[in-house]
Amino acid sequence: MDTHALIKPLLVKNDSKIVLYVGDGLGGLPQEPGGKTELETANTPNLDQLAREGVLGGSIPVAPGISPGSGPGHLGLFGYDPVKFLIGRGALEATGIGFELREGDVAVRANFCTLDAQGNISDRRAGRIPSEESAPLAIKLRQVKIPGIEVFVEPVKEHRFVIVFRGPGLEGAVADTDPQLTGVPPLAAKPTDPGSKKTAEICNEFVKQAQQILKDEKKANGCTLRGVAGKPSLPSFDEAYGLRAAAIAVYPMYKGLARLAGMDIVGDAKTLDEQMQVLKANWDKYDFFFIHFKYTDSSGEDGNFDAKVKRTEEYDAAVPQILALKPDVVIATGDHSTPSMLASHSWHPVPTLLWAKHCRPDAATAFGERDCVTGGLGQFEAKHLMTLALANAGRLGKYGA
Amino acid sequence: MDTHALIKPLLVKNDSKIVLYVGDGLGGLPQEPGGKTELETANTPNLDQLAREGVLGGSIPVAPGISPGSGPGHLGLFGYDPVKFLIGRGALEATGIGFELREGDVAVRANFCTLDAQGNISDRRAGRIPSEESAPLAIKLRQVKIPGIEVFVEPVKEHRFVIVFRGPGLEGAVADTDPQLTGVPPLAAKPTDPGSKKTAEICNEFVKQAQQILKDEKKANGCTLRGVAGKPSLPSFDEAYGLRAAAIAVYPMYKGLARLAGMDIVGDAKTLDEQMQVLKANWDKYDFFFIHFKYTDSSGEDGNFDAKVKRTEEYDAAVPQILALKPDVVIATGDHSTPSMLASHSWHPVPTLLWAKHCRPDAATAFGERDCVTGGLGQFEAKHLMTLALANAGRLGKYGA
Repeated sequence: MDTHALIKPLLVKNDSKIVLYVGDGLGGLPQEPGGKTELETANTPNLDQLAREGVLGGSIPVAPGISPGSGPGHLGLFGYDPVKFLIGRGALEATGIGFELREGDVAVRANFCTLDAQGNISDRRAGRIPSEESAPLAIKLRQVKIPGIEVFVEPVKEHRFVIVFRGPGLEGAVADTDPQLTGVPPLAAKPTDPGSKKTAEICNEFVKQAQQILKDEKKANGCTLRGVAGKPSLPSFDEAYGLRAAAIAVYPMYKGLARLAGMDIVGDAKTLDEQMQVLKANWDKYDFFFIHFKYTDSSGEDGNFDAKVKRTEEYDAAVPQILALKPDVVIATGDHSTPSMLASHSWHPVPTLLWAKHCRPDAATAFGERDCVTGGLGQFEAKHLMTLALANAGRLGKYGA
Repeated sequence: MDTHALIKPLLVKNDSKIVLYVGDGLGGLPQEPGGKTELETANTPNLDQLAREGVLGGSIPVAPGISPGSGPGHLGLFGYDPVKFLIGRGALEATGIGFELREGDVAVRANFCTLDAQGNISDRRAGRIPSEESAPLAIKLRQVKIPGIEVFVEPVKEHRFVIVFRGPGLEGAVADTDPQLTGVPPLAAKPTDPGSKKTAEICNEFVKQAQQILKDEKKANGCTLRGVAGKPSLPSFDEAYGLRAAAIAVYPMYKGLARLAGMDIVGDAKTLDEQMQVLKANWDKYDFFFIHFKYTDSSGEDGNFDAKVKRTEEYDAAVPQILALKPDVVIATGDHSTPSMLASHSWHPVPTLLWAKHCRPDAATAFGERDCVTGGLGQFEAKHLMTLALANAGRLGKYGA
């Protein structure tokens, strides 16, 4: 079902305010049979109050059993079908460091590697070169010149950097040059469809010049290219929902994802408290606010149950600052679950709370995974959440007479 | 959503073992308002224990309100969209008697009928001729010779038999020749698309020769053809899931369905206990085991509530033999519900239990329909079960970065 096509003719403007408050990786698992999850363990009086007044459910980011990355996880929350709207890995990496991709750009994740005297890869990650050493090398690669093409090179972390090619006629269907093996040379870049021939040639020219520039380096004297990808084309929040949308995020990845959806990135907050100040300062200028809290995910990724509990309590503690602004719709959820027991993203449904004047209450007494299972939203695909938000905000007219 | 395309790039190999333990027609209904279903009535301590440790839900085989046959019921459990992957009735009938269809075969369900002196049908089922009388006649029909075509004829039961045509250029789009009326002659076989013209001609030639062979029979002196169908083309379990899959079933139909999905049919068990011995003997050779228990369905079809309760207890009693092998994922479910109150397959969601180390527990205290309604899997389309199994077995990587 193309939800955007379905709701487009139904959109209504009004003065309502919608807040999508994302606790990244919010869902979890108990530490022992019969135990409580991180969210159930955390003391979350504010969210529990909203749960009693609102409606709960379990969001399925992509499909049952699928563990999504941050890209598809957020696309689902933003109402885009994450199977239909793909963000290539190069584009996601560029987005993640805050690079503003333009239409027609091609982005590449690149790795520094170590080549031996025969040109074979002896270390695919250049001895896991530290960022302090690799960043200047990435910047040095800006010397690469390709006629008619703008070349951007940005450091990322350790052996990773990003390349963006900008110029006419570029497409992103080029295979990886990383052979995934040592003892063999990097592969030549090859187009996987005819329209990407030029991009492949440019990739090969880049690598050739880069090896020349890096030839005296001990560790990082070569590079491989992966995840070549064009800028994904998403309808903007304004086009799709008629919403002036603002993103209040700390990390570049989430700013980037919001930018791809046409949101304005507002403020320069470093803490959740600063994010709330930015929210307040921009309250009158926007209809929709995406607030991203990272640490529920990172503590889960660290496998630290107690830390995730504590981070969840921080996430809860900021809720009154949202409510003080008198929003019409508040959604608290995650882009996926990150159980600290798994120390990774998982496939489990994501606890979701929708609070608005006219949501139909359920029996929930607190915000937790078990309450979500029997919540009034049931289990639903994440991409439907934006429609629910618009409906609860009075921004959707009737479908059919 | 094409789930197979979605998960294909995410597949990971490991040593995990998945058991899909199917109690055919498992779901039921209470005998009186407020009463318990067959599954709720049965004493099922082993499944109840798994329910407390695992997660429950209601599986919807095809779509809400749809009562599936065994074919679509099992296709859903095997992760194939039962609306997209159709098994024509001829192919299902052939499969059901253990005939191994090959690519390009066309299978037909045929009925013996009685023709009067004018060639009109006087009895569409040849007086419900008993199998002892009809089987030799079906075998006699192997005398039919069609140039360039291999013709297989197999008895089924009473007035029913199966024909399989094997040869080049055959397709299965041919309309039934049974007019569904008496007092009129059988219809000529007509192609419903141009590619099946040859098949229709062969069908007509078969009927002509068959009537000649049968002309002196009292009851079964004619035949009608129904459900003409090619072999369905399903991606195998190996292709779709990277799983070496074994089927342990007693009845030909379920062996046949498993064979269509590319499973190996292992053992020759006649009882559930023998099936468990086959499971044990093949444990190291496969990643995935489909174990089929028929009698929960047949007792339901008989309308015998107490018998279904008893059969459900047998189904439960074998569970420890599965657990003794230390599987990573156990799924206990049915291909559809068969409430003894209806004495037929039904549309009700199928009680489903998924047990694995990292499933998120719910509030269930036993395995029964009511607990499944509030279970953590929610209600879901059966075709997603295989994705959940793979995820819980650690056999699926992350979707997107």
